[in-house]
Amino acid sequence: MATVDKPTETKPNYKVIGTRPIRHDGVDKVTGRAKYGADTQMTGMLYGKILRSPHAHARIKSIDTSKAEQAPGVHAVITSADMPEIGSKIADLGEGMFDLKDLTRIVLAREKVVYKGHAVAAVAAETIHQAEEAARLIEVDYEPLPPVLDVRAAMQDDAPILHEDLRTAAFASATDDPGEKPTNVAKHFLHEKGDVEKGFAEAKLVIEREFTTATVHQGYIEPHTATAIWNADGQITAWTSTQGSFCVREQMSGLLQVPLSRVKIVPMEIGGGFGGKIVVYTPPIAALLSKKSGRPVKVVMDRAAVLEATGPTPGSYMRVKIGVDAEGSITAAEAYLVFEAGGFPGSPIPAACMTVFACYDVPNGLVNGYDVCVNKPASKAYRAPGATHAAFAVETIVDEICEELKIDPLEFRLKNAAVEGTRRVDGVLFPRVGMVETVEAIQQGDHWKSSLDESKAAGQRPTGSTPLPGHEGDVEKKRGRGVASGFWFNAGLKSVVTASVNTDGRVALVEGSTDIGGSRASIAMQLAETLGIAAEDVTPTVADTDNVGYTDVTGGSRVTYATGWAAYEAAMDIRRQMIARAALIWDVDAEQVEYRDGSIIGPDDKVFTFQELAAQINKTGEPIIGRGSSAHDEPGGAFGTHCVDVEIDPDTGKVEILRYTIAQDAGTAIHPAYVEGQLQGGVVQGIGWALNEEYVYDEQGVMQNASLLDYRMPTCFDVPMIDTIIVEVPNPGHPYGVRGVGEVPIVPPPAAITNAIYDAVGVRMRHLPMSPPNLLPEILKNT
Amino acid sequence: MATVDKPTETKPNYKVIGTRPIRHDGVDKVTGRAKYGADTQMTGMLYGKILRSPHAHARIKSIDTSKAEQAPGVHAVITSADMPEIGSKIADLGEGMFDLKDLTRIVLAREKVVYKGHAVAAVAAETIHQAEEAARLIEVDYEPLPPVLDVRAAMQDDAPILHEDLRTAAFASATDDPGEKPTNVAKHFLHEKGDVEKGFAEAKLVIEREFTTATVHQGYIEPHTATAIWNADGQITAWTSTQGSFCVREQMSGLLQVPLSRVKIVPMEIGGGFGGKIVVYTPPIAALLSKKSGRPVKVVMDRAAVLEATGPTPGSYMRVKIGVDAEGSITAAEAYLVFEAGGFPGSPIPAACMTVFACYDVPNGLVNGYDVCVNKPASKAYRAPGATHAAFAVETIVDEICEELKIDPLEFRLKNAAVEGTRRVDGVLFPRVGMVETVEAIQQGDHWKSSLDESKAAGQRPTGSTPLPGHEGDVEKKRGRGVASGFWFNAGLKSVVTASVNTDGRVALVEGSTDIGGSRASIAMQLAETLGIAAEDVTPTVADTDNVGYTDVTGGSRVTYATGWAAYEAAMDIRRQMIARAALIWDVDAEQVEYRDGSIIGPDDKVFTFQELAAQINKTGEPIIGRGSSAHDEPGGAFGTHCVDVEIDPDTGKVEILRYTIAQDAGTAIHPAYVEGQLQGGVVQGIGWALNEEYVYDEQGVMQNASLLDYRMPTCFDVPMIDTIIVEVPNPGHPYGVRGVGEVPIVPPPAAITNAIYDAVGVRMRHLPMSPPNLLPEILKNT
Repeated sequence: MATVDKPTETKPNYKVIGTRPIRHDGVDKVTGRAKYGADTQMTGMLYGKILRSPHAHARIKSIDTSKAEQAPGVHAVITSADMPEIGSKIADLGEGMFDLKDLTRIVLAREKVVYKGHAVAAVAAETIHQAEEAARLIEVDYEPLPPVLDVRAAMQDDAPILHEDLRTAAFASATDDPGEKPTNVAKHFLHEKGDVEKGFAEAKLVIEREFTTATVHQGYIEPHTATAIWNADGQITAWTSTQGSFCVREQMSGLLQVPLSRVKIVPMEIGGGFGGKIVVYTPPIAALLSKKSGRPVKVVMDRAAVLEATGPTPGSYMRVKIGVDAEGSITAAEAYLVFEAGGFPGSPIPAACMTVFACYDVPNGLVNGYDVCVNKPASKAYRAPGATHAAFAVETIVDEICEELKIDPLEFRLKNAAVEGTRRVDGVLFPRVGMVETVEAIQQGDHWKSSLDESKAAGQRPTGSTPLPGHEGDVEKKRGRGVASGFWFNAGLKSVVTASVNTDGRVALVEGSTDIGGSRASIAMQLAETLGIAAEDVTPTVADTDNVGYTDVTGGSRVTYATGWAAYEAAMDIRRQMIARAALIWDVDAEQVEYRDGSIIGPDDKVFTFQELAAQINKTGEPIIGRGSSAHDEPGGAFGTHCVDVEIDPDTGKVEILRYTIAQDAGTAIHPAYVEGQLQGGVVQGIGWALNEEYVYDEQGVMQNASLLDYRMPTCFDVPMIDTIIVEVPNPGHPYGVRGVGEVPIVPPPAAITNAIYDAVGVRMRHLPMSPPNLLPEILKNT
Repeated sequence: MATVDKPTETKPNYKVIGTRPIRHDGVDKVTGRAKYGADTQMTGMLYGKILRSPHAHARIKSIDTSKAEQAPGVHAVITSADMPEIGSKIADLGEGMFDLKDLTRIVLAREKVVYKGHAVAAVAAETIHQAEEAARLIEVDYEPLPPVLDVRAAMQDDAPILHEDLRTAAFASATDDPGEKPTNVAKHFLHEKGDVEKGFAEAKLVIEREFTTATVHQGYIEPHTATAIWNADGQITAWTSTQGSFCVREQMSGLLQVPLSRVKIVPMEIGGGFGGKIVVYTPPIAALLSKKSGRPVKVVMDRAAVLEATGPTPGSYMRVKIGVDAEGSITAAEAYLVFEAGGFPGSPIPAACMTVFACYDVPNGLVNGYDVCVNKPASKAYRAPGATHAAFAVETIVDEICEELKIDPLEFRLKNAAVEGTRRVDGVLFPRVGMVETVEAIQQGDHWKSSLDESKAAGQRPTGSTPLPGHEGDVEKKRGRGVASGFWFNAGLKSVVTASVNTDGRVALVEGSTDIGGSRASIAMQLAETLGIAAEDVTPTVADTDNVGYTDVTGGSRVTYATGWAAYEAAMDIRRQMIARAALIWDVDAEQVEYRDGSIIGPDDKVFTFQELAAQINKTGEPIIGRGSSAHDEPGGAFGTHCVDVEIDPDTGKVEILRYTIAQDAGTAIHPAYVEGQLQGGVVQGIGWALNEEYVYDEQGVMQNASLLDYRMPTCFDVPMIDTIIVEVPNPGHPYGVRGVGEVPIVPPPAAITNAIYDAVGVRMRHLPMSPPNLLPEILKNT
């Protein structure tokens, strides 16, 4: 790992931050002791099975559950009739706002099913097999309707309408009857800066291109699951796999119309989320089945349900136009972005609109974004939601501009880079950011300086790739290199930490952020740094919603920033109390005592180490517990610049990643190994998205590849070791300079790989994925 | 319930305190959802079985576990060789100090077994049956030694010695070789006040009597149990039934020689403790079996083990002498108290010495107390430990004095009562206390004013009693009335509470005190009172040792006092933050805002209810969480005066309780129903102690009644509804005037019943229990 620092910024002399201690939950996770959602076991527990729609679009005329109710072992059958009807009410879930009226229909379809796999009813029985048998006995009378699967088709006047009551004035203004006609366009977003017409007029070169991307799933290993008890006193407890227990609580409270505090959510360990485990699918169903049966009920999705009925990233249609002057400075940029909302409004189009041109100083910009319903699962957040789509468009156009103007693509980025003081097209002013530094890091790195021929050696491939039978040695593979940059704004939001000092000099830390990528460690390390103790001397616990204060979702790359800040505050609260206690013991004024380097220092060479004073606490007064609460919103924004070498088999269209280097500004890398892990994980997901992953639908809207055998995600055999360069431009909006790191690594890969493919075979791809069936025809056209 | 207030003390206008909301854990407990220790289930869990000594006293020559290790299903066998040897080190467990060197030997015998049932080895196997079979295959070579079962015999020079290395200078001073000779006397306690010789010389009447009491068990419903995992990273987690999770952590850390913070104790619901669930018996065994097997291990005691090998209240020998002048004022008092430590030092003799004369203003006093080892289980705390013994002696002598001097027993108590400013014989000065008020409450109550003939009607008996066959109607039953008073000092110690405000206006409270008698409710109510919200709007959780700050044991009647105080502090912390937030929202100075009656009130008629402001919190800044930490030591002391009517069958010696009234000073009754429950429960246990309960030993020290069929505890058929009078003399050492209530109710019953028996049949009993076999001969002697 190379670290690039601004020479003018002195790096603080941290003792814990920047080191790589073993994560606190490590042994539990590698030995299988860690408890995930489906590990919940309870006496008398029933098993739930959800019946799902075979149609992508149909009206539900009736549901007859009587046979299922009589089936062996069945204790409860529910449909949407068992859920309260809810008027339109927006719930802010941190990463995404959801209308409860839609959400209740995602959980259990009401008037219509709007995608294949849409949940329609559920059964609780003594065994999962009994539940499955009984689910088959539920008779649903559907009136099938024509599905619409493409956003552009869905925007047509004659398109099948998913929601008869949906009106969107901004879109309907293009029709005869503004705001009165049903539409599939759920929302229109508009950002404007400067004068784009003038900007394009000043341009020497203007390039405009169209792009499409496929629906892609987050592909977390662990399916959605929840176990719930609806107690006789009205108290609901649910054990679930989620990115945010408070967020689940909020949704449960809203969906089931019970007071917030009557719901307790116990967050189990999570086997991946990436934005897809924020919306509740199973917890309300488990709770309703429990209410009806009087028993605890566990619901676990199967993989087909995860793919067909949770929230993938949307497929999209994008048209982007960029103008540059003769020196290669951007004069104007315009984007028209249309995202698949899926069955219900709520695609990540807002974030796409915010991030689309954010890497650059764009004097004149215009962004139009549309959230459009189609008969696919309701799309949701997926790692830097929307930004990857947008970067695919922008960064490949930038590559084309550089080619036309014969400008080095890194030099173009340095020239146009967003810096402190740059105002984004959506109006946000950048603080000190590290876009330039990530470009410089790539520029100065081995990878960029190496020749393409060296790539194979540099990449640390786990295995070699094998030519197709009959093609051994007879094809000349083509190599190419591409670069791309990306941006994610990161989130702040709210977090709470409490921490109590044990007499053995260790500290028990309680926090509410589900630990997906090692955040227990990064939070504990900030507490440890502040107290001047070792990371190993902190015991972090992720607590349930009754045991810790309100903490927003693990999303928006916010946890190390925001919950870390709360840990810092809790540590400062402990420091103040330690100072007061030392003053009491020494019989001096607290003003004469200071806390420095893990020691409490008084007048006349009086000194306690943290451990020494901790041992005195319970002997000299009340126990010491610190609380920290954060609601800061200066997460700093994160930039990354990537460089990739590919090798293409022109005979098959198969793209192999030879070498991949990511340079990213982490602000301050609290635990560099987990920063690297985030960088590498994001890149690998971006590679999957670039090269293979897509939902394949038939004309009726039935997904044809709803299994992990057919839905092609990269494995360790498909990717080299991803080289990481952690750039550290401290975020001025955080006590330790932290910026979120989790999301932006997925943003540049599709664009960088597209650019590398062009470099290799002269084909500019404008559709994802660039899988052999999509790429090969283009290569053949080109030769 | 009648409430007696001092007319001069104005009762605050509480909204929540003094009401009777449904306890938060009520539904879970009555529906069977609550999780007790033995409910812990884990994948791959093994079952532990403890092998116990058949001898009351024997040297362990060798233990051969080889056959057991080979038995089917066995994963681990342990003996004391698997536990670290520990030098003498005192662990302060809040209610009792324990020497780890002894404690490790209680957990698993090392050189010797010193009581029948003493744990010797343990097995973990896949089923409990396999574990039991394997335990039988462990071959222990014992060298039996003569047991000593009586404290006076154990103090003789020629007594069998339990611990060859035990030396006690204070006792050994009576021998030829002071401090050098082995002894069974583990400790001598001495309190002196004034000049007893002079005091007795001034007395008109001096009465000195000898008393003995039997070993009595707490009789909690739930046996001891623990499930533990000793993880590969050295982290130990144990789920157990305990009165204090931090106290278990302390013991585990000491016994297993692992750092405190590497042990997490999860306190399950507890099925009774009464002082007997403080010392660890099963958790270290479960942990060691887990370490050796690599699996979670559950250990559950059977009832025989609970009776034979946990910590009952000691049998005792007492000699007490009281002198009074002609007016009935006490001039001097002297006590010589000898308690059975059992197999290892640590009987509750210190508390007996502190409480023995505490009801009275004794100008000249002398107390000698001895802790003496005998071959019985190591005695431990049992509800007001030691005070019941002492009161049995003192209060029956007082009754005799009153008879001699023809003084009304309540008037005698009023004349001699301890009041504010009275100094106890052990040197402690009383603050404002309610001894006088409890006597007055009895004096003014229905019961005292009623005739004995009315008693049968007044008592609300669940069933009538049936005369023995052949005795129907032919025996004239004798009735009598007795009174007695009692004192318990109560404890303060340390507690931590955190509480977070939910946006629905409810508060989640986290505390560390095991809830035995409804303390979740009493703690939550103090938080609610302080915030001005409803008790139902607080959700209390008893957290594990990693999730809450250090909290001492649930014992010493301290929880409502001390953890309640921590809840008060947490609420005050929340109030300060609510004020600051309101000031922020209103854009005024925080000094202009006050918190009153659950509302936040600003200038110009600005007002938020708690609920209104709670709804604003997360929209206007960081979440609000309060912390409270208490280490106060002015628990106030609690007094009770009891009145009992009995009816005796002179033909069988059976004593029936006709009517029972307890008047007790609660300071402030937070939740009167749970105060009443404590009063009634304590009285019923005292009745059992008075009339039936005892360990019956054969000469070899083998308990003959080690089951709940043979060990006779009172059932609902044996007792009337106990009438309660809650006296409220607020404790000046608590924000709401709370005094602990849990322990003192058990103190007077044996004495009151003894006095009532005398009143009925003219026999002064000086041995407990006063069961038919013990009472009948005395009645026959007397007639």
